[in-house]
Amino acid sequence: MSLTPEQQAEIEAQRAGGAQTLRAVSPGMEAHLYKAHEVLDHGFVRVIDYMGDDAAICQAARVSYGRGTKSVTNDEGLIRYLMRHWHSTPFEMCEVKFHVKLPIFVARQWIRHRTANVNEYSARYSILDREFYIPAPEHLAAQSVVNNQGRGAVLEGAEAARVLELLKADANRAYDHYEAMISQEGQQGLARELARMNLPANIYTQWYWKIDLHNLFHFLRLRADSHAQYEIRVYAEAICRIVADWVPFAYAAFEDYRMGGATLSARALDCLRRMLAGEEVTQESSGMSKGEWREFMGVIGRG
Amino acid sequence: MSLTPEQQAEIEAQRAGGAQTLRAVSPGMEAHLYKAHEVLDHGFVRVIDYMGDDAAICQAARVSYGRGTKSVTNDEGLIRYLMRHWHSTPFEMCEVKFHVKLPIFVARQWIRHRTANVNEYSARYSILDREFYIPAPEHLAAQSVVNNQGRGAVLEGAEAARVLELLKADANRAYDHYEAMISQEGQQGLARELARMNLPANIYTQWYWKIDLHNLFHFLRLRADSHAQYEIRVYAEAICRIVADWVPFAYAAFEDYRMGGATLSARALDCLRRMLAGEEVTQESSGMSKGEWREFMGVIGRG
Amino acid sequence: MSLTPEQQAEIEAQRAGGAQTLRAVSPGMEAHLYKAHEVLDHGFVRVIDYMGDDAAICQAARVSYGRGTKSVTNDEGLIRYLMRHWHSTPFEMCEVKFHVKLPIFVARQWIRHRTANVNEYSARYSILDREFYIPAPEHLAAQSVVNNQGRGAVLEGAEAARVLELLKADANRAYDHYEAMISQEGQQGLARELARMNLPANIYTQWYWKIDLHNLFHFLRLRADSHAQYEIRVYAEAICRIVADWVPFAYAAFEDYRMGGATLSARALDCLRRMLAGEEVTQESSGMSKGEWREFMGVIGRG
Amino acid sequence: MSLTPEQQAEIEAQRAGGAQTLRAVSPGMEAHLYKAHEVLDHGFVRVIDYMGDDAAICQAARVSYGRGTKSVTNDEGLIRYLMRHWHSTPFEMCEVKFHVKLPIFVARQWIRHRTANVNEYSARYSILDREFYIPAPEHLAAQSVVNNQGRGAVLEGAEAARVLELLKADANRAYDHYEAMISQEGQQGLARELARMNLPANIYTQWYWKIDLHNLFHFLRLRADSHAQYEIRVYAEAICRIVADWVPFAYAAFEDYRMGGATLSARALDCLRRMLAGEEVTQESSGMSKGEWREFMGVIGRG
Repeated sequence: MSLTPEQQAEIEAQRAGGAQTLRAVSPGMEAHLYKAHEVLDHGFVRVIDYMGDDAAICQAARVSYGRGTKSVTNDEGLIRYLMRHWHSTPFEMCEVKFHVKLPIFVARQWIRHRTANVNEYSARYSILDREFYIPAPEHLAAQSVVNNQGRGAVLEGAEAARVLELLKADANRAYDHYEAMISQEGQQGLARELARMNLPANIYTQWYWKIDLHNLFHFLRLRADSHAQYEIRVYAEAICRIVADWVPFAYAAFEDYRMGGATLSARALDCLRRMLAGEEVTQESSGMSKGEWREFMGVIGRG
Repeated sequence: MSLTPEQQAEIEAQRAGGAQTLRAVSPGMEAHLYKAHEVLDHGFVRVIDYMGDDAAICQAARVSYGRGTKSVTNDEGLIRYLMRHWHSTPFEMCEVKFHVKLPIFVARQWIRHRTANVNEYSARYSILDREFYIPAPEHLAAQSVVNNQGRGAVLEGAEAARVLELLKADANRAYDHYEAMISQEGQQGLARELARMNLPANIYTQWYWKIDLHNLFHFLRLRADSHAQYEIRVYAEAICRIVADWVPFAYAAFEDYRMGGATLSARALDCLRRMLAGEEVTQESSGMSKGEWREFMGVIGRG
Repeated sequence: MSLTPEQQAEIEAQRAGGAQTLRAVSPGMEAHLYKAHEVLDHGFVRVIDYMGDDAAICQAARVSYGRGTKSVTNDEGLIRYLMRHWHSTPFEMCEVKFHVKLPIFVARQWIRHRTANVNEYSARYSILDREFYIPAPEHLAAQSVVNNQGRGAVLEGAEAARVLELLKADANRAYDHYEAMISQEGQQGLARELARMNLPANIYTQWYWKIDLHNLFHFLRLRADSHAQYEIRVYAEAICRIVADWVPFAYAAFEDYRMGGATLSARALDCLRRMLAGEEVTQESSGMSKGEWREFMGVIGRG
Repeated sequence: MSLTPEQQAEIEAQRAGGAQTLRAVSPGMEAHLYKAHEVLDHGFVRVIDYMGDDAAICQAARVSYGRGTKSVTNDEGLIRYLMRHWHSTPFEMCEVKFHVKLPIFVARQWIRHRTANVNEYSARYSILDREFYIPAPEHLAAQSVVNNQGRGAVLEGAEAARVLELLKADANRAYDHYEAMISQEGQQGLARELARMNLPANIYTQWYWKIDLHNLFHFLRLRADSHAQYEIRVYAEAICRIVADWVPFAYAAFEDYRMGGATLSARALDCLRRMLAGEEVTQESSGMSKGEWREFMGVIGRG
């Protein structure tokens, strides 16, 4: 990504301000405010506003549990306790608003998370810019041969070159024709809301996206996961780094209990107990399907 | 649209069944079940399942208001009362599930309605079909000259021909290249989740979409409105006709109080009272902006 | 209400702080932060945190509508336009968090608004305080004789005195027995989660309640309305005064288009056009029921 | 619970009907329709309507994943796969509507689950019945001495008798006074919306509650859990038995992966791998707090 001089100037103007507030302030988040974190070739994520910090999570929990939280001596321990026991409402008391620029096919996955507020750039009203996502050569992956939704090895040589050539040429041609159709020089000009249908799914759009911390963690668990598509995962990872600076205790608990954790079924727990008791358990004696057993082996480090 | 013989056979098989149920049954809706209502050139809407009927709305209202609803003598009157006073929860007690085939740029507007359940065809897992929305000549509208989001006159002659030619050629070329990139003949084949980015926004997708009646009415009020984009409005209108057969009293109340009604501001009500008292009110003496005044004149039939 | 010295000291400590922030700051809201606005006899509403201001609404709208919003010359006009056309997503970009102390029967109405985040004081973990809502004599209303859900005239004399006496005596006796049951002096002591069932619905609870501005306006339209129960209306009115200081343009638009406005049905609009054309329309010739006609007369100032 | 003869007759009338439908029918659920499953002393749960079955879940998944689901040979395997990988949207395609009668303190916990539709009996409009939850002696538990939110041993002898006496007497006195206050014999009669505030939290209310299967499973995981309060757990358990008959494959997967499963943190997984490799891991060498370690021991069967 290269921000335009106008965008860079706008960010600097936003960061030049500053005023007094009585609200909770997260110093780690103030350092991020308005700055554009580059993602993919033309995309970015930047924090526009936030509400709350680690202390705000604890404050809300203490309203709920009253004296019940007195026994937990510090904020970090309380936050770990809340995360471990799925007490999600205190995490909902923090809120964050991002400005995101992203390809449309990523936006289509992203929007499936419904518990968020969105204002997207409208191609009914306005004209989209000529910016398309073209994968870097090292992300030009083949279809997986074992998994319908996965990626396999990276494409090589002539095949890779051909794909890049097609993606670039089609995107540019589609945009040329978009411009030609809406042009009002010497013709009426097609309605924008119709002309946009000619543009491919790798064109960039942008939106403001606002979400509470509990639902953001849910989004991150799914989208920063290694099974998520690379092009949305890099956005999730950029957000992870921001959240780690915003609410360090909550983010550390999220990493331990969610990102780094795993859910085991009743069958898996039964196998585990037998294994710890010295029994040699096999897929056949586990009661699990082959796929489940393979995943279970991965979780306990025998994959 | 032309359903494939396989699709037609599937629908006939679904309608050939039939079983006894103790649940509320809407005869008007049973007649629609599974049938495909054609929309645009390749799209459709069909009802897959439903829960409740006009009586179910009243039954829920009577649980809430108890004896308070006894004074309303019949279901139609009760439903009109509920709609008029924005008592929305009884309408939430009905649910409907549709199978919809629609262009991606329409799907992107549609999904903005968050209070619904969606299962969309995944182009990460599967290969999209070669079907694109190409507007009929009479819907090939120019950009409005008075309204940033609107449509103006229909394009004519050479300009219209050129637009149709571009849309068709670009869609087909993009699909040819999509097929070429994912092909595994003599090459590895690009991952589907990447190749799809080359496809334009007028390609068709499909989904199952489930929503309660209250939220469906909200969707219909916005999308069956004359200001909605034509390509989503025709889907909303098809759904309106289905809902009218499903819950006739509720739909009639919706038409009277929502689709055919209007909300007036405090300023507009003040003007109205002055006009009814014989005063000659003008935009200047109304306190409204020019845009507001124009809309107000439209509402009271002087537009 | 009388805040305890501890509560008063806590509020003063919260307001004594202050730090620099780069976020949007609403001076009107900073003046409210943490202060307790008294409601009913022991309740209060106080702002704990907020995100955004009038400018943040416009900023989000401009992302969506791009150049489409350039023609609207100022923020106030843009906000009025958004409110008039039910463009709700920009208002969702503001968020507010309240600390509310309220009787349980009010909390039960309040919680029906689902699009909000809540952390309530838990009577499973902690012991409730001996504080009950006892209506002031002027709010001790009789059951309406015309409306199942309404209030009629104020109770007088001996009847009023008897009601107040019963409410006070029952509440205190219930609380005495609550204390006696959970006491661990000379006995095991009943579990708190069970003992609480003896307490009446006028005991006070408290919660943190966080909501976006669009959904808050929806709450206020229903609960600051003259048909809302007095005991929740006074909370809504206190919040209205706070919101007017937080986002003055948005609140003014809300007052004009929502609180002071009215929705007319297709039938009502038809009558209106006939009346403006000089016709003498009666309930009989209106096509409306008696109830609808009475409400319509009220809206146009002939009630 | 003892249903009144009127209620019993109403249920029989509802079950006497029956009509043809083309919709998916679950025979297991048809057998439950309208019947009242008794819960606590006066409460019940009964199914009023439902949408979908196990096959409907698979049908929705196959729309999403297309050919990706062809490799899974049968519905049961597909449903287990969806549950294991948190693919929640196909489960959202089933919906169920219950009629529930429950004490108000249970209703207050229940309503915290926001993703559902509710129509509750209104004590503003109507008069509540004289029915209170009085615990059976074996559920009259003492406050836990180790856990702020838990229950300890059952109360015995004189203490138990005294508690029951207080609960009964206070409830009846409160109801007597409620009746006295709203009575219109020889007086105006207090408004119902005010008089209800005198009633304790163990009085019964009732509502219609509609929810999709994914969110219902989330509710059941929390409320059928052994840490949930007994009085809500028995409702959750009654619903579990109904759901097992409605969608047998989905319910079995839920039992294996959610109810009987457990989530382990990154730290716990690390310990597990060390233990399986033969290392003697202690709380001190685990990196976990005492509470976490105790819970971990429980999960792996060493508690």
